[in-house]
Amino acid sequence: MSQADIGLIGLAVMGQNLALNIDEKGYKVVVYNRTPSKVDQFLAGNAKSSRILASHSIEEFVQQLKTPRRIIMMVKAGEAVDQLIMQLLPHLEEGDVLIDGGNALYTDSNRRTRQLSEQGILFIGTGISGGEEGARHGPSMMPGGNVLAWSKVETIFQSIAAQVEGEPCCQWMGRDGAGHYVKMVHNGIEYGDMLLITEAYHLLKQGLQCSNQELAEIFQQWNQGVLQSYLIEITADIFTVMDEDGQPLVEKILDKAGQKGTGRWTAINALEQGIPLSLITEAVFARQLSALYQDRQIMAGIFNTTTASEFTGDKTAMIQAIHDALYASKIISYTQGFLLLQSASEQYQWDLDYATIAKIWRGGCIIRSQFLDQIYQGFEQPPKLANLLRVDYFQQAIKQSEAGWRNACCFGIEQGIPLAGFHAALSFFDAYRCQRLPANLLQAQRDYFGAHTYERIDKPSGEFFHTDWMTK
Amino acid sequence: MSQADIGLIGLAVMGQNLALNIDEKGYKVVVYNRTPSKVDQFLAGNAKSSRILASHSIEEFVQQLKTPRRIIMMVKAGEAVDQLIMQLLPHLEEGDVLIDGGNALYTDSNRRTRQLSEQGILFIGTGISGGEEGARHGPSMMPGGNVLAWSKVETIFQSIAAQVEGEPCCQWMGRDGAGHYVKMVHNGIEYGDMLLITEAYHLLKQGLQCSNQELAEIFQQWNQGVLQSYLIEITADIFTVMDEDGQPLVEKILDKAGQKGTGRWTAINALEQGIPLSLITEAVFARQLSALYQDRQIMAGIFNTTTASEFTGDKTAMIQAIHDALYASKIISYTQGFLLLQSASEQYQWDLDYATIAKIWRGGCIIRSQFLDQIYQGFEQPPKLANLLRVDYFQQAIKQSEAGWRNACCFGIEQGIPLAGFHAALSFFDAYRCQRLPANLLQAQRDYFGAHTYERIDKPSGEFFHTDWMTK
Repeated sequence: MSQADIGLIGLAVMGQNLALNIDEKGYKVVVYNRTPSKVDQFLAGNAKSSRILASHSIEEFVQQLKTPRRIIMMVKAGEAVDQLIMQLLPHLEEGDVLIDGGNALYTDSNRRTRQLSEQGILFIGTGISGGEEGARHGPSMMPGGNVLAWSKVETIFQSIAAQVEGEPCCQWMGRDGAGHYVKMVHNGIEYGDMLLITEAYHLLKQGLQCSNQELAEIFQQWNQGVLQSYLIEITADIFTVMDEDGQPLVEKILDKAGQKGTGRWTAINALEQGIPLSLITEAVFARQLSALYQDRQIMAGIFNTTTASEFTGDKTAMIQAIHDALYASKIISYTQGFLLLQSASEQYQWDLDYATIAKIWRGGCIIRSQFLDQIYQGFEQPPKLANLLRVDYFQQAIKQSEAGWRNACCFGIEQGIPLAGFHAALSFFDAYRCQRLPANLLQAQRDYFGAHTYERIDKPSGEFFHTDWMTK
Repeated sequence: MSQADIGLIGLAVMGQNLALNIDEKGYKVVVYNRTPSKVDQFLAGNAKSSRILASHSIEEFVQQLKTPRRIIMMVKAGEAVDQLIMQLLPHLEEGDVLIDGGNALYTDSNRRTRQLSEQGILFIGTGISGGEEGARHGPSMMPGGNVLAWSKVETIFQSIAAQVEGEPCCQWMGRDGAGHYVKMVHNGIEYGDMLLITEAYHLLKQGLQCSNQELAEIFQQWNQGVLQSYLIEITADIFTVMDEDGQPLVEKILDKAGQKGTGRWTAINALEQGIPLSLITEAVFARQLSALYQDRQIMAGIFNTTTASEFTGDKTAMIQAIHDALYASKIISYTQGFLLLQSASEQYQWDLDYATIAKIWRGGCIIRSQFLDQIYQGFEQPPKLANLLRVDYFQQAIKQSEAGWRNACCFGIEQGIPLAGFHAALSFFDAYRCQRLPANLLQAQRDYFGAHTYERIDKPSGEFFHTDWMTK
């Protein structure tokens, strides 16, 4: 009976594809689903030519697993995971490995790792990125949790993950919720990347009146250079897809963005950690703003009194400036993202390895890119910092892009094209490289009305002063 | 024995000043403090010529109060409030009024209102703004909680609050945590106002090389116009204060901003509510960024290779542009803030009155201004909307400021001066008034890699489509 190497619960698309992926790599998988008919449908359908085993109850499922049991849960994040764990626990033994492959909030994974370890169960919370395709043919995987569990799943995980230059896009992230935390930041970065691409599109389309044919060519060309990435590639693809009437399909799509919440988690966490993650936060706000659709139509009626004039400058140069703005802003977004990872790693003592994170994001996931290979190489060099702007390669990239970045930003301002991402990135850069910020005035104000005290530039740090400004 | 109209617990500066304020208005106050010696110090010191009564135990304190008892707690927000409530409860009777005047998180006030109401105690959570001076001579007060409590404290509260045009800066906000919520957003707006002033300062000082004498004059002049406000006024003051060596004191202050957390709460809440509160969020990030002091010095060494050139344009015109940018950005910040209030009011069914909120912020608090009087008047007009950009006065103001706003933003970009607030405001404005945002591309991307589906502009809302983009 006990012949399966690994079990998987939850046969939504991600679960099905992951099961098929594991089967394909030569492991015996048993699957279970709360609605048992879905198991039969899967076995008779997508899994028809696989060796995947069916089970129709938790008991039957558990009995088919070799010990120590390895069980991947692919159910909705949140309460459903806790409920499933409660159902499974009576059937498990010490040393069994329970894996949550959903998009869990990392604090839940912190808690589950601890609670299950008290009962001898080894918990893993793993980020799995790459959507349906990734799950089927090789995702990027970010496991964390109980370190004793890792050796029991390492071979399976690394064989089903995406491979880049012969190396699996799956490595151990750290204890407790480290894996799900890294996945959360990954998703936030994905939000940022997507915002920046839409801003470039807005400038090209509205500012430079590029046709969709031109847009496709520009993005195809960008995909040959430093911006080479999955998201740039599919953007180029999207511009070539026509609707039934022969017009570009993308232009028929309603401009109201959806979101599932992990970008928002990242932004909230940055505020809590005290890390200025402005670009990803603007990406979340931009989606929320696009969803205020009715308001926007009213506002357009009130404020859209000027029409953009036709562009008469050097179009090729401006396209290059937009490219540079996108590239530099992307560098800033990842700078902010890694600052956040560093802050969390220190707070939770996860000891995250930033080079490894960049390395496993190079393939399988939505943000995969040549860019991440440069981050990996940069962070691998001693002294192994986590700050992109300390890496020579990105310093040169910023310096080469800076003029175009500023031009594109000003062009957007003149044209009335919103560029929350480009501007947030540039403001961050200008503030981060600013020796003397105007926060001295802010401290004076706080001391004036609230006696909050201040430090002085000519006195040691930690010495606080108060002035009675009103009587001076 | 039972002769006091109201009791106050917690004799830090805010508590002391509030007690003195209430005494001055003719009410008999009894005070208590956990460290009883502080009571005696207060009575022998600041309260020497008052009629304030002392008490040295909770029992003695409660016994001196007329029934129904009215007790203001001025202790540290958080657990200390719950502990004090537990201490007081055995001594209270049904119908007594318990008031939290600290900076409580509104969800705590939601909970406390409900829990205490089950025991017959009428809870009020009230925002009190204006710092030490406000507490002493008339703060802006934002009470909410159990509506049955309001009539029992209304007269006292309104007599101790700031008065503007004969009207008290204190009105009932709504049930449960409504008062503390409004105070939280007030503090967030204060963060935004302060950020915008520091950005104007940065442009004037570094971009236009204004002397501190000129800065004082510019802010004095601005304080005569549409920007008239307490914060502009004290900013003008600050520039006139000299250090012992005769140099401007503000330039000796370390540019590392502090914060106490209410701005951060506002930003986090906006993300949760789905409201793009970008300007206040950037204000929180700007403080966090200023605090990364060591990083900034390193970055300055790497990236500050260009020096700003001397300004050769029309200085007067650029000063006006900076004024306009500050004014327009402020309008956007308050637009965002009231959108957030509206969203929370709907979620919690508080039925907030936006005109009243603007009205009670006109005096006593840190953000008090002529500007808030305009908001009050605008929101008072039918159809009583909560959106500044729907008010004619602000529409005209934006239109008149728009050209200068864009100029000042581009000037900052050219000069390498970070303007996270100005840019966030302008990006919001350009997106909010944008009939067609590039979110269509974002939806196409999400549908491409995650089959998230999309709506179409030529089909009814709520009808979702999916395209298999890869095979097209």
